[in-house]
Amino acid sequence: MNTKSKKIHLIIKNIFKKHSLSSNHANICANALINAELVGAPSHGLSRLKMYCDRINKKIINPKPKIKIKKISQSIAHIDANNSIGFVAADIGIKKAISNAKKTGIGLVGIKNSGHYGLSGYYAEQAVKKNLITMCFTNAPPAIAPHGAKKSLFGTNPICFGTPTASKIPFILDTSVSVINRGKIRVAARTNKKIPEGAALDKFGKPTTDAKKALAGIQLPIAGFRGSGLAWMVDILSGVLTGGNHGGKVKDPFDDFSGPQNIGHLFIAIKPNLFIGNYNERIKENIKRIKRLPKIKGVKEILYPGQNKHRRYKKNLNKKINIPTNIAKDLKKLNF
Amino acid sequence: MNTKSKKIHLIIKNIFKKHSLSSNHANICANALINAELVGAPSHGLSRLKMYCDRINKKIINPKPKIKIKKISQSIAHIDANNSIGFVAADIGIKKAISNAKKTGIGLVGIKNSGHYGLSGYYAEQAVKKNLITMCFTNAPPAIAPHGAKKSLFGTNPICFGTPTASKIPFILDTSVSVINRGKIRVAARTNKKIPEGAALDKFGKPTTDAKKALAGIQLPIAGFRGSGLAWMVDILSGVLTGGNHGGKVKDPFDDFSGPQNIGHLFIAIKPNLFIGNYNERIKENIKRIKRLPKIKGVKEILYPGQNKHRRYKKNLNKKINIPTNIAKDLKKLNF
Repeated sequence: MNTKSKKIHLIIKNIFKKHSLSSNHANICANALINAELVGAPSHGLSRLKMYCDRINKKIINPKPKIKIKKISQSIAHIDANNSIGFVAADIGIKKAISNAKKTGIGLVGIKNSGHYGLSGYYAEQAVKKNLITMCFTNAPPAIAPHGAKKSLFGTNPICFGTPTASKIPFILDTSVSVINRGKIRVAARTNKKIPEGAALDKFGKPTTDAKKALAGIQLPIAGFRGSGLAWMVDILSGVLTGGNHGGKVKDPFDDFSGPQNIGHLFIAIKPNLFIGNYNERIKENIKRIKRLPKIKGVKEILYPGQNKHRRYKKNLNKKINIPTNIAKDLKKLNF
Repeated sequence: MNTKSKKIHLIIKNIFKKHSLSSNHANICANALINAELVGAPSHGLSRLKMYCDRINKKIINPKPKIKIKKISQSIAHIDANNSIGFVAADIGIKKAISNAKKTGIGLVGIKNSGHYGLSGYYAEQAVKKNLITMCFTNAPPAIAPHGAKKSLFGTNPICFGTPTASKIPFILDTSVSVINRGKIRVAARTNKKIPEGAALDKFGKPTTDAKKALAGIQLPIAGFRGSGLAWMVDILSGVLTGGNHGGKVKDPFDDFSGPQNIGHLFIAIKPNLFIGNYNERIKENIKRIKRLPKIKGVKEILYPGQNKHRRYKKNLNKKINIPTNIAKDLKKLNF
């Protein structure tokens, strides 16, 4: 982090502390929000800060949660996050999955009573940095219509997978099963920009490129019934299995203050040398083979998931974080 | 199975026995092939029988494998399938994942030196019938170009997820990450039918609906870089991690007789009541909520993945299995 980012980190941390979070929890939240900005995902960064504070003020995020970790086996744990802010629950969860995997080869952690935790890739990266393969699942408020339905029910429900690569840049696939991320639509709505065609329908079921109409309407899943099925899988793994809300019951954090979100997450971590002794060599060879394929016109390099994000991160580390005027105003108000 | 299917089952079993498989292994293979026909996936059924026999004759499928199961922990096992036919390796693998999950809550089984195992959903169903949640991954011969490449490298690499539903019909999502299954293109090529637009490019990189040209060319992944990333994930989980071939090295079973396939599979099985006591109620409620959503015009019922397949299966159980002339000829020749 450069001096400017550090300053913003401190402001965010202070804001969370002023909203009753412990210094440690405030730090976890500030780390996650700054990371989102640095990897080029502002939709999951500062633009959400006011929302989190609003939810704390309305007592539907618990700033002083009593998080219970239930040990089910050496490998498996269940966490009741007590309506903590999602960042904190997820931070504890992924650390537990990591330590269980280190001990037994596999770690499986289910979390309930959590909230929106930002980017799945951020947690996957933590596991990968500890030399583990990982899968992270979370559900989210209704945004995508199940195949055949004309009403949203699934969240954008990302599928996230990470693996060490024997290089400094981890392989992190973090793909929502919507054509574009809801966060991006939200940013487009805030900044009055259009969204791509084919990504959403308005509330009457008609295709739209108007971000506000898309937010009120239906986002489309990738690949029809396939994407719809993947979203359903994520809802089951992160919601039905863990004890979290599911089946469209996760509240929109921006629009619905009638109660806590009770989002569920599921983290899996696996030792890469579990079956074979030379995973590092193998993954290196795998990536090498793919990178040296003939490229289509205009493509300079075949990138693995996470590489682009890492490049943005490196670049942004030395730049000032861009804060839109409306968010700057929020920051001032929140840092009372 | 009706009398007709039973008769075909017996013929297939005999054919495998004549190709040196044990009665038990021949039975496992016949079950898998008949199942593919009954669920309406003939591309994974009898149309592959000759290929398997050819590979046995050329000694690149081992009909008398010495399959080694290495216990890594109560939860984890690694199987070296010794170039067995994929059906047998996968049958042993899923049974191991099931028994480990029953004991410890989670079962993780990696398999190497296996071959094409047919439908992932077939193995997922075995775990679901034992009241487990499951994920099954396998890689496959090159069919899909990584995002940015103009050469195929990933297989159609299915993502398969299954869960009990508290009803007789399991939830089985078994979705390749290609726009359509390679098996379907193969059947279209055999029967001189066209494939849908947008599913494949010819070997020059031009869109095609000609199945034969598509087989020689490139299949397209669902949703561009997202589908490409999912295919890569499956290659890593089932190939790099397990010790199987990966990065485009899995041989095409129909066209490449230069050696065994060494396909890798990864099976995960999880107890549904691991975290909460009422999974059955929860999954029932989840499905109910989704089914009662307002439907788009022309849709009678919102189906969960696996429901359609189950309907086809029920219907086909009482019908004669349709055997195209060329396959009937194969059967006669093979049942010498």
